[in-house]
Amino acid sequence: MSNSAETVNLAVIAGDGIGPEVVAEGLKVLDAVTTAKVARTEYDLGARRWHATGETLPDSVLQELRDHDAILLGAIGDPTVPSGVLERQLLLRIRFELDHYINLRPAKLFPGVSSPLDVARVAPDGIDFVVVREGTEGPYTGNGGALRVGTAQELATEVSVNTRFGVERTVRDAFARAQTRERKQLTLLHKHNVLSYAGHLWRRTVEEVGQEFPDVSTAYAHVDAATIYLATDPGRFDVIVTDNLFGDIVTDLAAAVTGGIGLAASGNINPDRTTPSMFEPVHGSAPDIAGQGKADPTATILSVAMLLEHLGRADEAQRIEQAVAADLAGRGDAVRSTSQVGDAIAAAAAQG
Amino acid sequence: MSNSAETVNLAVIAGDGIGPEVVAEGLKVLDAVTTAKVARTEYDLGARRWHATGETLPDSVLQELRDHDAILLGAIGDPTVPSGVLERQLLLRIRFELDHYINLRPAKLFPGVSSPLDVARVAPDGIDFVVVREGTEGPYTGNGGALRVGTAQELATEVSVNTRFGVERTVRDAFARAQTRERKQLTLLHKHNVLSYAGHLWRRTVEEVGQEFPDVSTAYAHVDAATIYLATDPGRFDVIVTDNLFGDIVTDLAAAVTGGIGLAASGNINPDRTTPSMFEPVHGSAPDIAGQGKADPTATILSVAMLLEHLGRADEAQRIEQAVAADLAGRGDAVRSTSQVGDAIAAAAAQG
Ligand SMILES: CC(C)[C@H](C(=O)O)[C@@H](O)C(=O)O
Ligand SMILES: CC(C)[C@H](C(=O)O)[C@@H](O)C(=O)O
Repeated sequence: MSNSAETVNLAVIAGDGIGPEVVAEGLKVLDAVTTAKVARTEYDLGARRWHATGETLPDSVLQELRDHDAILLGAIGDPTVPSGVLERQLLLRIRFELDHYINLRPAKLFPGVSSPLDVARVAPDGIDFVVVREGTEGPYTGNGGALRVGTAQELATEVSVNTRFGVERTVRDAFARAQTRERKQLTLLHKHNVLSYAGHLWRRTVEEVGQEFPDVSTAYAHVDAATIYLATDPGRFDVIVTDNLFGDIVTDLAAAVTGGIGLAASGNINPDRTTPSMFEPVHGSAPDIAGQGKADPTATILSVAMLLEHLGRADEAQRIEQAVAADLAGRGDAVRSTSQVGDAIAAAAAQG
Repeated sequence: MSNSAETVNLAVIAGDGIGPEVVAEGLKVLDAVTTAKVARTEYDLGARRWHATGETLPDSVLQELRDHDAILLGAIGDPTVPSGVLERQLLLRIRFELDHYINLRPAKLFPGVSSPLDVARVAPDGIDFVVVREGTEGPYTGNGGALRVGTAQELATEVSVNTRFGVERTVRDAFARAQTRERKQLTLLHKHNVLSYAGHLWRRTVEEVGQEFPDVSTAYAHVDAATIYLATDPGRFDVIVTDNLFGDIVTDLAAAVTGGIGLAASGNINPDRTTPSMFEPVHGSAPDIAGQGKADPTATILSVAMLLEHLGRADEAQRIEQAVAADLAGRGDAVRSTSQVGDAIAAAAAQG
């Protein structure tokens, strides 16, 4: 473990709703498994702070976040805050300011996990792919505007911004990941028959960067057709690369077919390591079940595994993943609380 | 059937790949069921014509199309034609020029049809909803552009255009459809927490137009979350209203969970009836199986039913739907050719 960090400065943003509950279990498992010295700083960001102070992400906090090795985030968002405020000024602001251009979302159906699909028929060989979603461009840039709001002549636009720089670094990262995998397949998802300007850029970039990776085979699917494949033949995918919005949509579907967003982990990664990367469950703050010990902390625990992997602690990451796999295999119909699930996985990972 | 047309001037665009095969069966069923005098004009549009003449949709042909009561389209698209050419210059051009602002896509799981979902568990009460997809705005307008193409500084944009005019007429149509249904539920799909300008417009319009339909209940789902519901609880939806691109994506998924795009019908509708509406299967031209009698004509046959319904011939539409339902219920694993399926449904619909 020569390249690994022996001390980890971790920023923790528990956030809203079930965020604090699931983050507590993620940290429990982290403590159980790692030999690194973990120094944690908790940041109170989200709906509570916005209501109390009107602040979303003060510049000084953003500056402090930069001084950490990684960030663990629970969930951001609350129905009492106007739509978009916390998303754009907090969650997306972190992704953009810290240049998290890779949004990495594995989709794996663990043994024993029930899928809404008739798996025996549509995915007899299992499901195990990863989505490399671009994180700093596309329709997420906040470009666009509105004119004559509230009148019969209202016009609202949203602009998808795609640069060769942004697309190329994402595509290269996706190829590099595909190269480390057994099947070495990369599928571009887009809609180039309609979104021709952006689609052309993405396609050409995949073709060109692909020359550097002759052992990786490539495929293409329109995003609409891809949702069909995700429902009828998800086993076909190995690595998917796509833009910010398409990635948002297909990773929720990918989570659904692999057992639900209670299990889906993600990393907002800066592969250049010039800033701390941020790891978070794909799910939201689920205010309807907050505070009841009902939330499944597994997605956060798997996000902690991704965090350790990113910090060069692959052995520890693997022990968490194995402990999660064992726990999932034995879950059956038993109802356990958030902390009971965390305890069980922490104990197994500690022994691992 | 007092309001119905006694003569129907039908424009037929069979198109590419399996288009001609499935259209032949659609027309067979139409002939079997209708008492109207149908005058057909076939238009040779698509890949063949483009290769032969470079033409996609000559202005004179577009003008002729306008003089019909309805259009039946098979499928457009071929891998030998550069991406986007036939889509934008032919298919989308018709939708835009004829102001087909409602793209109507029913999603119904017929008894006997196998779904990739574990239906007994995730949709015990069946699946029966309809998507009202906006058809003339959103990211489909062709707005956008590219700069410094082919260089490291390339920039490509796509602009989603949303007007109060365009959104309102779509939303009002969706409410009116919801009002005729048993559950009277309308769900808006968007992504207003990120696409705030357009999202705000859509949300506000649903709220405001909803006042005219006090008996219709409304709900909202982010498009990413909606893909989860479509996989885990599709029975929850009654009428969905959404923009052009989100509608494109979720209707393919909706088709997948209700038995595949071999069964999914659609109408490109101008509810004001100032132009002919166009009916087409959701599937593409499937060049890999073209000419082999393997294509399922059911989606086209159901599109013919939508066409008749639109022309005020609801009884005939219903006879087709019942014949299709009966055929689907008895299909089992028997392999039948495209024309055998058409023959069976035509015979049943004729007796109806
Ligand atoms: C909360 C929202 C802004 C976010 C996104 O759209 O990226 C979420 O859906 C996600 O996928 O992480
Ligand atoms: C072929 C393509 C332009 C079209 C669309 O995107 O609308 C198709 O996917 C559809 O759904 O009818």
